[in-house]
Amino acid sequence: MPLARAISAVENEAPDSIAILDACFAKGGRAFRIGITGPPGAGKSTLVARIAQEYRRRGETVGVVAVDPTSPFTGGALLGDRVRMGDLAGDPGVFIRSMATRGSQGGLAVYTAQVCDVLDAAGFSRLLIETVGVGQSELEVAQTADSTAVVLVPESGDGVQAMKAGLMEIGDLFVINKSDRDGAERAAFAVRGALELRPKPADGWTPPVLLTTASEGKGVVEVVERFEEHVAHLKARGGLAGRRRRRVEQRMRDLLRAQLWDGFERRLPAAAWAQEVEALEARRTTPHAAAARLTGRFGTADTPVAARGS
Amino acid sequence: MPLARAISAVENEAPDSIAILDACFAKGGRAFRIGITGPPGAGKSTLVARIAQEYRRRGETVGVVAVDPTSPFTGGALLGDRVRMGDLAGDPGVFIRSMATRGSQGGLAVYTAQVCDVLDAAGFSRLLIETVGVGQSELEVAQTADSTAVVLVPESGDGVQAMKAGLMEIGDLFVINKSDRDGAERAAFAVRGALELRPKPADGWTPPVLLTTASEGKGVVEVVERFEEHVAHLKARGGLAGRRRRRVEQRMRDLLRAQLWDGFERRLPAAAWAQEVEALEARRTTPHAAAARLTGRFGTADTPVAARGS
Repeated sequence: MPLARAISAVENEAPDSIAILDACFAKGGRAFRIGITGPPGAGKSTLVARIAQEYRRRGETVGVVAVDPTSPFTGGALLGDRVRMGDLAGDPGVFIRSMATRGSQGGLAVYTAQVCDVLDAAGFSRLLIETVGVGQSELEVAQTADSTAVVLVPESGDGVQAMKAGLMEIGDLFVINKSDRDGAERAAFAVRGALELRPKPADGWTPPVLLTTASEGKGVVEVVERFEEHVAHLKARGGLAGRRRRRVEQRMRDLLRAQLWDGFERRLPAAAWAQEVEALEARRTTPHAAAARLTGRFGTADTPVAARGS
Repeated sequence: MPLARAISAVENEAPDSIAILDACFAKGGRAFRIGITGPPGAGKSTLVARIAQEYRRRGETVGVVAVDPTSPFTGGALLGDRVRMGDLAGDPGVFIRSMATRGSQGGLAVYTAQVCDVLDAAGFSRLLIETVGVGQSELEVAQTADSTAVVLVPESGDGVQAMKAGLMEIGDLFVINKSDRDGAERAAFAVRGALELRPKPADGWTPPVLLTTASEGKGVVEVVERFEEHVAHLKARGGLAGRRRRRVEQRMRDLLRAQLWDGFERRLPAAAWAQEVEALEARRTTPHAAAARLTGRFGTADTPVAARGS
């Protein structure tokens, strides 16, 4: 099956998507998954394009998955002037996909992981996952990667304290992009300061803080080198297996949630649902009480099926 | 119970949070919920502060819920110079809460709705929900409001086509803020053009496109008037009841998902879980097959409990 069709089947949750995903899962596990996240306007797409070019130069094949709704990849401006994809556009060693839909089975993170599994099985050796680091779901996507770079701009320096709760916690690398602008060194200093306050990671990795000007390709080689160094470090310390186990566990939890809901929805009579909604609208009951009644009647058995006869 | 303690209990999912939420649900339903969303840097927080002031001038009480992680409300700079909250800070008719945690029971939208229910029950007549319009979950939050304004800046005009899929679909009002900058009229024109391409809403409301300079308070009175006009329109046409029913249904679905998962997790033996994860790591099975085995053994009964004897 052609790659684009397999991905479309997964995106549309077509009947054969489960078979496709199962086949991809069995074949996958070789690609190195790299997350690129950061605030809008940090130049993530340009950096992703440059990283892809550098990986191609090194003989790797590259899949790009853009989850950023503000990304030029997503906006259809791929060949426009905002991102000069240049050599990438016609290169069969590069596959670019923007996430147009968000999937109904599980969250955005599961859905992205599924598309990555397809690209992984198709043999791409490096997957670049671009997400805008603003919403919670986008942070979760970043956490599905083996290694994640947080991309900031010189002006971000002042806001590093405020960002700590989210972005600062997930970076394995930090990149101050657009570093030809004022304050790049000061921003790098602020990030290093914030990192010192972070609990030391168990795997002994100290996130480097790098300066780039992606629009001119400056600093990109070092970013790629540090990604490769990080994955080698994780492999040596066993951290890669740990990250991948957590990813598999999260994937299972999301699938289980979806399966439990689907089963429940099939058993739930429309009349029982309508009756509870009506009671809620009249405020004769509360959401928790209504939900408890419905799960009690149509939800789970108190004992596993296998044990029920005993 | 003091308001701040009730909200903290809900935020921390304390044991009494369900009782609190149920009591609040029974008492609530009177507040008008207003969503303010848009890209980072559009000046949403300043606009929210100005709208709150205008509502106070009109004798309304105001609850502010900031879900935007980049918001100055959230960053603790509430009294700083970025947002001049002025009169608001010491006013007992105003309550401001930023969403520090995201909750584990259901998504961000449920969680925000719960905090709004508490403020609603506490008697605040207008709730302003500020979200950054970037991630999917933030769009969902905006959709829990009775009326939603999408805040843009003059420079957004060029990107309106790209934004259509998300932000453009959810606005009941559009605000071009920072309209003292070049291109405000052009941006308003672009938004109006994009709105013409949108399917006509069943309720017959045409979203107005307004110009503001929130930092100077310009245009804010008209924004408030249009919100009030919109809610009056919805009430007259029955649209408000429809929006609130959809909100209740979504709330129920999220609660049911959480309850189903909690029940399943309690029944799931740790050894069975570990065995499936191990098989997945060795790629001896696939996520779908593993999930189906676990739901088959510990998940749902095929028939409702009540019908099982027949």
